Amino acid sequence: MIACPDARGIIASVANFVSDHGGNILEGDKHSDTHHGEFFMRIEVEQGGFTLDDKTFANEWKTVADRYDMRWRIDWGSRRKRMAILVSREEHCLNDLLWRWRTNEIDVDLPIVISNHDTYRGAAESLKIAYHHLPITAETKRQQEQTIRELLDSNAIDFVVLARYMQILSPEFVANYPEQIINIHHSFLPAFAGSKPYHQAFDRGVKVIGATSHYVTNELDAGPIIAQSVIHVDHRDTIDDLIRKGRDLERMVLATAVRQHVEDRILVSKNKTVVFE
Amino acid sequence: MIACPDARGIIASVANFVSDHGGNILEGDKHSDTHHGEFFMRIEVEQGGFTLDDKTFANEWKTVADRYDMRWRIDWGSRRKRMAILVSREEHCLNDLLWRWRTNEIDVDLPIVISNHDTYRGAAESLKIAYHHLPITAETKRQQEQTIRELLDSNAIDFVVLARYMQILSPEFVANYPEQIINIHHSFLPAFAGSKPYHQAFDRGVKVIGATSHYVTNELDAGPIIAQSVIHVDHRDTIDDLIRKGRDLERMVLATAVRQHVEDRILVSKNKTVVFE
Amino acid sequence: MIACPDARGIIASVANFVSDHGGNILEGDKHSDTHHGEFFMRIEVEQGGFTLDDKTFANEWKTVADRYDMRWRIDWGSRRKRMAILVSREEHCLNDLLWRWRTNEIDVDLPIVISNHDTYRGAAESLKIAYHHLPITAETKRQQEQTIRELLDSNAIDFVVLARYMQILSPEFVANYPEQIINIHHSFLPAFAGSKPYHQAFDRGVKVIGATSHYVTNELDAGPIIAQSVIHVDHRDTIDDLIRKGRDLERMVLATAVRQHVEDRILVSKNKTVVFE
Amino acid sequence: MIACPDARGIIASVANFVSDHGGNILEGDKHSDTHHGEFFMRIEVEQGGFTLDDKTFANEWKTVADRYDMRWRIDWGSRRKRMAILVSREEHCLNDLLWRWRTNEIDVDLPIVISNHDTYRGAAESLKIAYHHLPITAETKRQQEQTIRELLDSNAIDFVVLARYMQILSPEFVANYPEQIINIHHSFLPAFAGSKPYHQAFDRGVKVIGATSHYVTNELDAGPIIAQSVIHVDHRDTIDDLIRKGRDLERMVLATAVRQHVEDRILVSKNKTVVFE
Repeated sequence: MIACPDARGIIASVANFVSDHGGNILEGDKHSDTHHGEFFMRIEVEQGGFTLDDKTFANEWKTVADRYDMRWRIDWGSRRKRMAILVSREEHCLNDLLWRWRTNEIDVDLPIVISNHDTYRGAAESLKIAYHHLPITAETKRQQEQTIRELLDSNAIDFVVLARYMQILSPEFVANYPEQIINIHHSFLPAFAGSKPYHQAFDRGVKVIGATSHYVTNELDAGPIIAQSVIHVDHRDTIDDLIRKGRDLERMVLATAVRQHVEDRILVSKNKTVVFE
Repeated sequence: MIACPDARGIIASVANFVSDHGGNILEGDKHSDTHHGEFFMRIEVEQGGFTLDDKTFANEWKTVADRYDMRWRIDWGSRRKRMAILVSREEHCLNDLLWRWRTNEIDVDLPIVISNHDTYRGAAESLKIAYHHLPITAETKRQQEQTIRELLDSNAIDFVVLARYMQILSPEFVANYPEQIINIHHSFLPAFAGSKPYHQAFDRGVKVIGATSHYVTNELDAGPIIAQSVIHVDHRDTIDDLIRKGRDLERMVLATAVRQHVEDRILVSKNKTVVFE
Repeated sequence: MIACPDARGIIASVANFVSDHGGNILEGDKHSDTHHGEFFMRIEVEQGGFTLDDKTFANEWKTVADRYDMRWRIDWGSRRKRMAILVSREEHCLNDLLWRWRTNEIDVDLPIVISNHDTYRGAAESLKIAYHHLPITAETKRQQEQTIRELLDSNAIDFVVLARYMQILSPEFVANYPEQIINIHHSFLPAFAGSKPYHQAFDRGVKVIGATSHYVTNELDAGPIIAQSVIHVDHRDTIDDLIRKGRDLERMVLATAVRQHVEDRILVSKNKTVVFE
Repeated sequence: MIACPDARGIIASVANFVSDHGGNILEGDKHSDTHHGEFFMRIEVEQGGFTLDDKTFANEWKTVADRYDMRWRIDWGSRRKRMAILVSREEHCLNDLLWRWRTNEIDVDLPIVISNHDTYRGAAESLKIAYHHLPITAETKRQQEQTIRELLDSNAIDFVVLARYMQILSPEFVANYPEQIINIHHSFLPAFAGSKPYHQAFDRGVKVIGATSHYVTNELDAGPIIAQSVIHVDHRDTIDDLIRKGRDLERMVLATAVRQHVEDRILVSKNKTVVFE
């Protein structure tokens, strides 16, 4: 994954570099943001044949990266990402992620589920996932968040999914996991940010409702959007109907965002995402 | 069309009334808003056989209407509604409405198109529609709006479509056409109200864009929503792409709202619409 | 639920009947099929106040029903429907139905899951649902189907959901459960009936894939369609991608159909459904 | 645009070639069809700086093309494509294309519209497009098709759009314009091929209807699909409603396909399209 100022010859330089070191490009996608003069690129290189490894790569690559002033990251694919799920009282997103994980549709290690309620212990433990119940009050919030961070650290967690986790994380917490905390918000953001979006949608009388998955930043529900979807509703839909229809939307949208994150398809720039499908 | 507090026996009373006067119900739909305890109903009665007419109806109907404290309206179907279109520089919604009108998909009288630009005179006049060019500056705005009202009056206009009309109408104007001014806004409201919604959407990095048709009230882009639709976009879409894709959305959504209005399918209550499809 | 030849005064007669017996109509929807001259109606009557019960209703109602030559059915709502699920190797629809059942989104009794594989015994039994493993070969098919019928009978099953059950049921079996067997087919029927629809879709190069839920009749994948949905795909999607995307479609579409069936919203006529939403 | 057997180093070779000749890649997309072992690529090269032109390119490029056994084509962008429209009695697709052409959304030369009816002469001629009325009977069909071919030749037409043209073209005609005749069929193919697809859809009771744009081949409605879309319908929709809703679908889908063709975004292989968006 590469992001850099747009310039001539970047693709040739990168493709050459791969080719010169015996590599074969399996997938490749680029995006030129002409509005901001930025260039983004993602390639997948076949491992067989490629003569560089995680020790030798950076030094060789430096020449190319420096020439174009690149921000870049590489994933050697030899290790599955490690995911943690945070959840509160709503089960549908957790349940859906667990199912996709169990059937390998989401291909990660999932060592822990953390919740401020004890409700879903059985669901996690029956799949041999450790379940940590950390109830939160105004007084304990700071301390419990510290405990969560220690759990993430000790479990070597790469990224965190907020599967309808209703606690706001502190700036320190968020800063520790930049573009590594994925939230699902139950509205088509930026409409109906904050609490009770289905009630807000009902009161406004909208004819579509939506769900938005985004990376968490310190501005509430304002981080870079990864995926969104909507469904039509009408005057016959009660708030309960919106909630029911929304559940299906939320789990689809969250699962899409998690899959794209796991497959390293997302680049963030200027609070927006480039998602290389 | 009936709106009243929910109560027992309304449907039977109405159906009986129709039946007792020789009528046959062709279409019927009802909605109970249990949240607010309101009842809404729309029926279409076959004209042949029905023994009441526009002179005798009100007196007979009064007994039923009073019993249930009904707000009601009736359309005798003997007269086509009369529509006016207001437009500024963007052509696509006007062009689409003219085509649907010319092919009778939108079945109304369309005596006038009014614009603050002279651009689309040819399009209107080639279809024998009078075109009024009323340029607007800060100084002339008040006077020109008065001229528009006179044009609407003298042409016996029933309802007004703002086909991307970029001038804000005064409260006096709006008050004169309650639930009779239909606007198209190029976003999925309530997101991106106000000006340049596609630019706002681009800057926010949303993954869907939308269009919303609503009745105009005195709060900008906050009137009762009639129809909404969205389309998926991604990082490759420039602002020009959003505008291009949005054009198709806007004309579909506006046409849907206009058709529903023309067919008397919309009831407004508490700034929301009940649309009997 | 009523189906009869279209005629004047049906609504008034029905509404009157309800009103005369102290009932209040909670929901009501009608449909006139002008193409075939048929009339369909569904009403929900509040139980409190209604002076008829399952013993006295039929006799009183006969006058109305006979006058209009009605086919009708009534559900007293005092008893939950009893559902059985049949499944083969694919888990996603079963898993989704079990979750919706467990969370009461699908409000039925679910005493048994039957399968020609033993794979999902744990999933069923952990929810206290009896799991019957009835492996099927060409020789045993007839006998095993007989066993299934006995299980359905002894469990007083009202309707059967084929949650990706890959065995074709015999005409005798189907005849026993008219409009009570719901299947999910993984294509937008009538395209790609029969086996391996995702492979067929891939080979044809379609740009949308779909899923269809329908009542089972003796013509393969040709019964009355209850619900359909589609999703966009493109050249980058492999067959595995189609299968993955399709899983989400299938479970949404099947859940919709099952919910509508459970809520008695579906009427069948001329191999088509009227679904009163 | 390149299609060739998949192999190592193709991207590097192509990117190098462009770079070595002073070119800069503006857009680039590739697709590896692992199912068939084929590789597809599309790049757009900035014209400024590129040292090759339409005379010198082929000779230089030959080395690369031969090494990978490429089928390729290049468009120098210096010339707009030339389009012809064929239409019968239905106006909506013609009207929509004319509007998009007039507003430069579809950026082509459009010298002629040909029809077996004289109905839309005014629409074409008012835009300075020559209109050729070629009525067709069983006897004249062969001769009139010959006249059409001469008109296409004499107007140097690159590609033909069948905007609801209801005559079947002969194999000789089709052979002359391989992957250059774009049709719109009013169903989600492969369902409801042939005549009266909305009637077929109504009779089958489907819950979605669709439209499909495809390249014409000699098998009816079976050519490579370029674009498809669908819309939900229900039991309340009459055949006239399906036709009305379908009109909007058809013109959207056809416009999408034409735009993609005009921008050289489509590659055909094994009766399927790769569409580089």
